[in-house]
Amino acid sequence: MTIHFSAYIATSLDGFIARSNGDLDWLFNATTSTDDHGYAEYMNGIDTIVMGRNTYQTVLGFGEWPYPEKRVVVLSTTLSADAIPSHLQDKLLLHPGPLPQLLKSLTEHGCNNVYVDGGSVIQSFLAARLLDQITVTTIPILIGSGIPLFGNPGHDIRLAHHKTTAFDSGFVQTTYQISH
Amino acid sequence: MTIHFSAYIATSLDGFIARSNGDLDWLFNATTSTDDHGYAEYMNGIDTIVMGRNTYQTVLGFGEWPYPEKRVVVLSTTLSADAIPSHLQDKLLLHPGPLPQLLKSLTEHGCNNVYVDGGSVIQSFLAARLLDQITVTTIPILIGSGIPLFGNPGHDIRLAHHKTTAFDSGFVQTTYQISH
Repeated sequence: MTIHFSAYIATSLDGFIARSNGDLDWLFNATTSTDDHGYAEYMNGIDTIVMGRNTYQTVLGFGEWPYPEKRVVVLSTTLSADAIPSHLQDKLLLHPGPLPQLLKSLTEHGCNNVYVDGGSVIQSFLAARLLDQITVTTIPILIGSGIPLFGNPGHDIRLAHHKTTAFDSGFVQTTYQISH
Repeated sequence: MTIHFSAYIATSLDGFIARSNGDLDWLFNATTSTDDHGYAEYMNGIDTIVMGRNTYQTVLGFGEWPYPEKRVVVLSTTLSADAIPSHLQDKLLLHPGPLPQLLKSLTEHGCNNVYVDGGSVIQSFLAARLLDQITVTTIPILIGSGIPLFGNPGHDIRLAHHKTTAFDSGFVQTTYQISH
């Protein structure tokens, strides 16, 4: 059984997933629409989320843990298990990487559909030619600087357009498949 | 009469309009489709093109001058009039900028619908809150590094989604309006 790795992420039109300090105000203030932009449907197909430490700490800051029914793996070489809040101890798995070891672990845990979240983790999976699909939701704003969605994988990566939806909110969402 | 400034530009999914050396191979090789992706329709509404020196020199390199029926203004402080090939002398206007002086000149020349071309000129018009519309055609490829479409205007710029088209080529084209 091959694991399917996908990402689902919002970016400013100029390619940032957060301001340099991690702030998402521009995203949260981008629309008053209650449309979830396909998020619930996407999440229904996911059994495991892999995120980096920055994303984990951002999500922790949201208050209530948003993934009570998912296996969540936090990729970090610096976090220690006792830094995880007690109510999340049985929901989170810390993994130090690198990716081949992570893959082995995900396979052993029976993961099938993995949501790869956060800029640096997405970049790592792209560079390692592991990401199978990415859904980019483009917010109609330029924020000028911040944490970039994409980095430099060191080689061109061609994607295959799968689907584009323009929402009433002005968000434009495109899903690409990546063949390796 | 207010001048309407618009841009129509292709970018890699990671936000580059050319490789660092100006190369557009990734764009020219992106599709075998003969669809012009709305270019002719867009150009029909344009009377004047403003471009920077880099874009001018790239276009010169294409061979035949592609804009025989348009007024073309090349923004440059370094090019001199005698550097312009003789067959283009009556088609090109050199202007040293800055933007307020350029605006005055465009008004005096009776320009109405101006195509703002090239990364740095688009960035200047955005930062100066002069650009009214931008059509971004996203090519399904990550090239990792290059000349960025957007820079840092120093302030957030909100855009209004106007129209999105996903082409058979896999190109996704979105037009935004910018109100100031």
